[in-house]
Amino acid sequence: MTDISSNNAHSVETLIDVLQTEDPSRIRAFLAKLPPGDEARALATLDKEQQARLIELLGPEKSVELLVKMTGRGVVSVIEQMPLQQAVDIFEEMPSRQQLDILRRLKGKDASRIIEALAPARAERLRELISYPEDTAGGLMIPEYLAFSRGMLVRDVLDDLRDYGEVYSDYAIQYAYVVSEGGELLGVLRLRDLLLAPKSKLLTDIMIKEPQKVRADTPLKDLKEFFKQVNYLGVPVVDTRERLVGVVLASAVREAVNRRSNQIFLQFSGIVGGEEFRTMPLFKRSSRRLSWLSINIVLNIVAASVIALYQDTLEKAIVLAVFLPIISDMSGCSGNQAVAVSIRELSLGLVRPKELLRVLGKESSIGIINGVVLGLLLGGVAFLWKGNPYLGLVVGVSLAANTLVAVSFGGLVPLFLRRAGADPALASGPLLTTITDVCGFFFVLSFASALLSRL
Amino acid sequence: MTDISSNNAHSVETLIDVLQTEDPSRIRAFLAKLPPGDEARALATLDKEQQARLIELLGPEKSVELLVKMTGRGVVSVIEQMPLQQAVDIFEEMPSRQQLDILRRLKGKDASRIIEALAPARAERLRELISYPEDTAGGLMIPEYLAFSRGMLVRDVLDDLRDYGEVYSDYAIQYAYVVSEGGELLGVLRLRDLLLAPKSKLLTDIMIKEPQKVRADTPLKDLKEFFKQVNYLGVPVVDTRERLVGVVLASAVREAVNRRSNQIFLQFSGIVGGEEFRTMPLFKRSSRRLSWLSINIVLNIVAASVIALYQDTLEKAIVLAVFLPIISDMSGCSGNQAVAVSIRELSLGLVRPKELLRVLGKESSIGIINGVVLGLLLGGVAFLWKGNPYLGLVVGVSLAANTLVAVSFGGLVPLFLRRAGADPALASGPLLTTITDVCGFFFVLSFASALLSRL
Repeated sequence: MTDISSNNAHSVETLIDVLQTEDPSRIRAFLAKLPPGDEARALATLDKEQQARLIELLGPEKSVELLVKMTGRGVVSVIEQMPLQQAVDIFEEMPSRQQLDILRRLKGKDASRIIEALAPARAERLRELISYPEDTAGGLMIPEYLAFSRGMLVRDVLDDLRDYGEVYSDYAIQYAYVVSEGGELLGVLRLRDLLLAPKSKLLTDIMIKEPQKVRADTPLKDLKEFFKQVNYLGVPVVDTRERLVGVVLASAVREAVNRRSNQIFLQFSGIVGGEEFRTMPLFKRSSRRLSWLSINIVLNIVAASVIALYQDTLEKAIVLAVFLPIISDMSGCSGNQAVAVSIRELSLGLVRPKELLRVLGKESSIGIINGVVLGLLLGGVAFLWKGNPYLGLVVGVSLAANTLVAVSFGGLVPLFLRRAGADPALASGPLLTTITDVCGFFFVLSFASALLSRL
Repeated sequence: MTDISSNNAHSVETLIDVLQTEDPSRIRAFLAKLPPGDEARALATLDKEQQARLIELLGPEKSVELLVKMTGRGVVSVIEQMPLQQAVDIFEEMPSRQQLDILRRLKGKDASRIIEALAPARAERLRELISYPEDTAGGLMIPEYLAFSRGMLVRDVLDDLRDYGEVYSDYAIQYAYVVSEGGELLGVLRLRDLLLAPKSKLLTDIMIKEPQKVRADTPLKDLKEFFKQVNYLGVPVVDTRERLVGVVLASAVREAVNRRSNQIFLQFSGIVGGEEFRTMPLFKRSSRRLSWLSINIVLNIVAASVIALYQDTLEKAIVLAVFLPIISDMSGCSGNQAVAVSIRELSLGLVRPKELLRVLGKESSIGIINGVVLGLLLGGVAFLWKGNPYLGLVVGVSLAANTLVAVSFGGLVPLFLRRAGADPALASGPLLTTITDVCGFFFVLSFASALLSRL
């Protein structure tokens, strides 16, 4: 009996031991005895040389059985280490879905060297599949499916499945499809309906007619919406001529959405590209972060130049220098809350980029409430500290006003950026804080100039 | 022929028209003609009264057929509007998975009123299921499954499926299970193996033996890890006595992870609770945001008090007031990049909270590189602006040093918070900016004090 947390350390150690025997049949026997998930896990924890040696000893067919159980990143790093011919041998044994995944992750040159080494028809097909953009139905679909023609009976299909079970066992056969002579999609067969129906029925009697389907160019956003509204495992994909070309599984859509939302979080925090792991090379990590920071520092200098304009006021009321960073920081915080809600709602399709007025209405009311509360707080502290009500007034009113500005713009900035074709997750933060800094510094210092004699 | 973007506006309009006839059979006929996904979509866009009226006219059984196609939030708002008896009638027709989802989302009182109105055995079962924490295998599992006893043949199962097809059609039958007399899990049957195997085989010959399984209390993190390593549609869940109690689908795990990672993004931006939609009441939205802002403003005042301590220095070199907000903001940005990477790696299980030294090593090297670059940039600007190399030195060195502090602490703070049992996504930002502000202000102003005669 095994459960998911057991056996891990144990199997790794033993796999290394068995590997050192260099005896292929002994290694195979060892792997065969492991419970299914543990094989891939054991492989993932070997170092690169040990992995390469293991694959060499096992041969391509058995190696693929292992590799298909690993996730994308892991397999790519194994493939990258291999000599071309070994990589091609292994690659040819993989299901198309995984081939595409690997080609997308490999660097351009490695990918084209592998494609060129394949049979021309196969290479052509892969080039076609890889040309679908990644986050569309075409890019997410499984390009293999079971399709039967319209004249067939339930019995014919069951016999076919039994005869070709070996071949089909790589496919995701939760659904089968009924197609016309020209390949157009006519209906969907659920596997369980095939099992449960009398054998003499025509497929066209038990199929779901006028099935839901998506075009190959349907974007991820629409696919997410689709699977949110219907509880299907997958949906067939058709080309512009209504011909069946593949199946998009709900799980593939969820995974892609998940990947996107992780990217949003990292981009929002200034990680360009939306992906950073500490295993990446130092220079790549630092230069990506720097590219975003460099833009930020320029914007910061621009915003701070407002302070330079009011140097006379500051000289006369040096105490304001204590409050400038507080107002800058608090406005940034208030604004970023609104930014985050807008980015989230945009990514879930709950708000459209043109709904500026609705968002403005919703955010400005929060801006007023929170501005008043925060303004009273900071104004009160300023008053109590220096015993000067005018200082409290300048600081409190400025923070209140700037909170309203920050929250309102915070809600709107991601919508503007989306309309302008820019990435809201990456650009909203710097843009927002520049606006709020300029306004905040201007509010405090111009208000202070007006009341200068009393400060 | 329908595709996912068409027909929407059209169907809604017509559904409202048909609803106004108040003729149940006409409404049913209309709904029957809609393609599958469009029914639920049309229902979701009706207003509350129209939905209630529609459900009343359709009766519970037909209504459930519609409601099961809607997502959680939508169904709950429909159920909340109903009189108790109507709600119970509809509830009883739903699959357990959706019943649990609704009970979890309903407010406590509504949920217990519905449970109390059910048959005692059913109520007991639901109370037991709902007692599993939401983000564990028990909370995520489908509590219905197909289980067969060990003596049966493939033929027996196929006959059983054919006979009880009607009943099973609500189940997620990608897998069936073989159990002992006491209910312990012995093996897994894949539906396609049942189809492809000779009928006279024993189930125990075609089942996957010693199957992977998880305990009901397995947390989401481990489930995610599990499905990352093995490419299964689902995994059986057993209780402490190894008895089968349900099935967790990979898709349910992905959805839960997705929900968590959206929460992380919003909490990181200061949305307490990790959930805000603009449809929520104004007061709830503003007070949640305020609770986080209030803590922030207190921390900001603490940090800015460092500036107050150096008022004399500032008075003599007022130009520093321009650079204080820049250093505060840039250090916050650099630090937050590191925070985001740590939060992401924590949530993916790529870093453990105790790996402080590894993270410190990885981050401090970035801190040095980026610190030097940013310090040269800002120092250069300061020098060019005032023509004073000492001003450039003070500002540049301070930013460089503080970038190193910010990036190093940024990487560590989420790990500390996780070890202390706090939520890194919510608390890292305020904690980090307080540290970086205090250090940054201290660096600039104490360094400036030392070089005061030259500024």
